[in-house]
Amino acid sequence: MTDMSIRAGWVIIACFCFCTSRGQQETLKWWNPAATHYKPEGQGWPSEVLYPYDRFPARAKKNVREVVWFKSQQSTGLIIKFRTDATYIHIRYKVKDTLFFEHMPSTGVSGLDLYALNKNGGWSWAGADYIFADTVQYFYNNLAPVGNKTYYLYLPLYNRVDWLEIGVPTTASFTPVDGNDKGSLVIYGTSIAQGGCASRPGMAWTAILGRRLHMPVINIGFSSNGQLERPVADLISELDAGMIILDCMPNMHSFSEAEITSRLEQTVNIIRSRHPLIPIIIAQHADANINQMNTSLDKSFKKVNDFVDRAFKKLKSKSVQNIYFLSAAAIGLTNESTVDGQHPSDLGMKQYADAYEQLLKKIPAR
Amino acid sequence: MTDMSIRAGWVIIACFCFCTSRGQQETLKWWNPAATHYKPEGQGWPSEVLYPYDRFPARAKKNVREVVWFKSQQSTGLIIKFRTDATYIHIRYKVKDTLFFEHMPSTGVSGLDLYALNKNGGWSWAGADYIFADTVQYFYNNLAPVGNKTYYLYLPLYNRVDWLEIGVPTTASFTPVDGNDKGSLVIYGTSIAQGGCASRPGMAWTAILGRRLHMPVINIGFSSNGQLERPVADLISELDAGMIILDCMPNMHSFSEAEITSRLEQTVNIIRSRHPLIPIIIAQHADANINQMNTSLDKSFKKVNDFVDRAFKKLKSKSVQNIYFLSAAAIGLTNESTVDGQHPSDLGMKQYADAYEQLLKKIPAR
Repeated sequence: MTDMSIRAGWVIIACFCFCTSRGQQETLKWWNPAATHYKPEGQGWPSEVLYPYDRFPARAKKNVREVVWFKSQQSTGLIIKFRTDATYIHIRYKVKDTLFFEHMPSTGVSGLDLYALNKNGGWSWAGADYIFADTVQYFYNNLAPVGNKTYYLYLPLYNRVDWLEIGVPTTASFTPVDGNDKGSLVIYGTSIAQGGCASRPGMAWTAILGRRLHMPVINIGFSSNGQLERPVADLISELDAGMIILDCMPNMHSFSEAEITSRLEQTVNIIRSRHPLIPIIIAQHADANINQMNTSLDKSFKKVNDFVDRAFKKLKSKSVQNIYFLSAAAIGLTNESTVDGQHPSDLGMKQYADAYEQLLKKIPAR
Repeated sequence: MTDMSIRAGWVIIACFCFCTSRGQQETLKWWNPAATHYKPEGQGWPSEVLYPYDRFPARAKKNVREVVWFKSQQSTGLIIKFRTDATYIHIRYKVKDTLFFEHMPSTGVSGLDLYALNKNGGWSWAGADYIFADTVQYFYNNLAPVGNKTYYLYLPLYNRVDWLEIGVPTTASFTPVDGNDKGSLVIYGTSIAQGGCASRPGMAWTAILGRRLHMPVINIGFSSNGQLERPVADLISELDAGMIILDCMPNMHSFSEAEITSRLEQTVNIIRSRHPLIPIIIAQHADANINQMNTSLDKSFKKVNDFVDRAFKKLKSKSVQNIYFLSAAAIGLTNESTVDGQHPSDLGMKQYADAYEQLLKKIPAR
C-alpha cells in the first residue's frame, strides 16, 4: 500500500482553527478534511460526492433505489489517513441518524476506530475514551511515540457523518495523507459487508481484510439491499478495481433461481466489459450452516446457496475467466459467530476475513 | 450435568395464565418462574433472594459495598431451564435499568439467549425476533421439533430482571427444570466475567465455558468491582463449588502489591477453610498484551500482572495445594479481541473460554 499525494503544508494550515480542548486543557489545532480537497481512502468518487463522506457520486441518486442511495451515504469503509507525532488526538463529529441499534453498539454504528500502520508493515490499534451525544467525541490519550507511522481512522459503519474535525496539540506535527484506491478490492454486499454487527469499524471483515492484505478496499455494502442491481454494477465497473467480491446472497432470498442467475450474469458481464481480467469472487450466504432450530430460515439459506452454486457453475461453463467461489462451508460460521443468526459478531467477522484471506492469497496477482 | 427436581405438574398449571400472543395469533399459556419455587441455574442462594433473579442472598446487602450489592442484582449467569415441544416460544419481561451501553448492545446488556441441550450432549442455538421497549419481548419462531431437548434460557448480563414470563401454545408440553448448582464452577471477577461486552448472554466466556464443560456456573462478576473482598469471599465459600476461578486483576490496578497479595491470600484462605481441596484458578489481567499505543494503560496492566504472578508464587511456596495460574499470554487477546481495549467482544470471549477450557481440562477431577 502506498501513501499517495501528501498534501502541501499551506493547505493544512489554512484549514486548522485554534481552540482549547476541555479533555486535556491543551491548545489544539483542528483539521476538517471536508474543507480541503482531501480524499479519504475507500471513497470511489471523491470529486463527485454530495456530502463529504458519501460512497456514491451525486449522479447515482437518480439511478439507484432510494434506500440504496440512503445507505450509500453511510460512511462504512471510508478511512481518513494522516501522520502525526501527537501524544493526544481529539476528534469531534456529527452524525445524521440513530447512534445505535438493538443488536449493534454505538461504537460500531456511529463510532470511529484508529489504527496505525507502522514502518515495519505491522498494525497497532489505539483505544479511546468517547462521548456519544449531539456531537460525538473521541479522545485518544497517552499515545506512544512510535516512529514513522501513518494513522488510519475508520469512519462509522452505519451512519452519515455530516462534519468531522481532528484536533492535535498545536506543538504536534500533522500531515494528511490522501487515500489510495488504485487496484482496490471492491466489495458489493449486504449488511454483513457494510459491517453489521462489528463492535467497532475496524472489526468489519472488509476492514480486517484490507489491513491484512495491505490493499485499499471500497465498500459497496448496503444493509438489506445488496441485490446485484444493474445501476450498482454500472457504478462498480467505473472503479479502479484490482479485484471484486460479490457477496449479495443474504439479501436475495426472495428471488427465484432464474432471477438470481440472471442478475449474477448481468453483474459479471458489466464488470467484464470494463475489466476483462480482474478476479471476481462470488460468495454463498455464510450463515447457512448455523443451526438456529428455525426450520423456515434454514431452508431459505440452503435454497439460495444452491441457486448461487449452480449460477456460478453456469458462468464457468460459459468459460468466464478468473471467477472464484467462496462457499458457506469455507467461511464456516457456527452458532457462536453471530449476534442474531444473520449478522456476525467480531468473532464471525474474523472468520469471514480468514476465509476471504485464504482464498484471495491463492488467486494469482492482478 | 443432571437436570434436577423436575417440578410436579400441578405447580406448573397453577402458574400459567391463558391469553393470546399478538406475534402468532395463537393462544398461549404463560409461566412465571418467580411465582413458583423455581430455582434458576447459576443462582447460589435461591431460597434467600430479595428479587427473583438476584445473585446474592438478601443478607449480603449489609456486608458488601453498595455498588457490589447493586451489581449482584444483575442477572448475569442465571439460566432458566425447561422442556417443551413448542414450535413457538414468546418471552416477555421487564428490566430495571438502561437497556444498552455505548459499547455493548441491548441484546447483551438486557437481552435473552436460548440454547438447547440435545440428548447427544450437543448444543443448538435459537435465533429470535425481539422488541426492546418498556416490556422487552423475545419471539422464537418455527422451532424445529428436535426430540428430547432441554432449553437453557440465559438472562441479561447487565440488568436486573424484575419479572419474566415464558409463553408457549396451549397445545404444547412445558416442563420447568430446576437448575443444578452441585459442584459448580464459581467465577469471581470483574466486568469481563460479568459478560462485558458479549453481543448476547450466551457469548459471555463464563457461559461458553459452562456449555463446553457441561458444568453449572455461578457468576460472581461485578463490573469495576471485582476486588477480592472479604465479604464476597465469605459468601463464595458457602457455595457447593467444584472449582473456583479468581479473575479480579482488571479491577485492582489502583492497589499496591502488598494489598493485592494480602487480598489474594485472604480469599484463598477463606475458600480453603471450607473447601480444603477444590481447585482454585488465579488469572492475570488478560489484555496486558494489547498494543493500544497507550503507554499509561500498558504500564498499569503489566504492573498488576507482575504483582499477581509473584503473589501466586508466594502461595505456592507456602504449599497451598491445588492452585493453578492462568497467564495473560495463555488467554492471548490481541488488538482485535476487544471493543475498547478492555472488554472482549465475542471474539475475545471465545479466546477467554478457549484458554480456561484448556487449563481446566488438565486439572484432575474434583
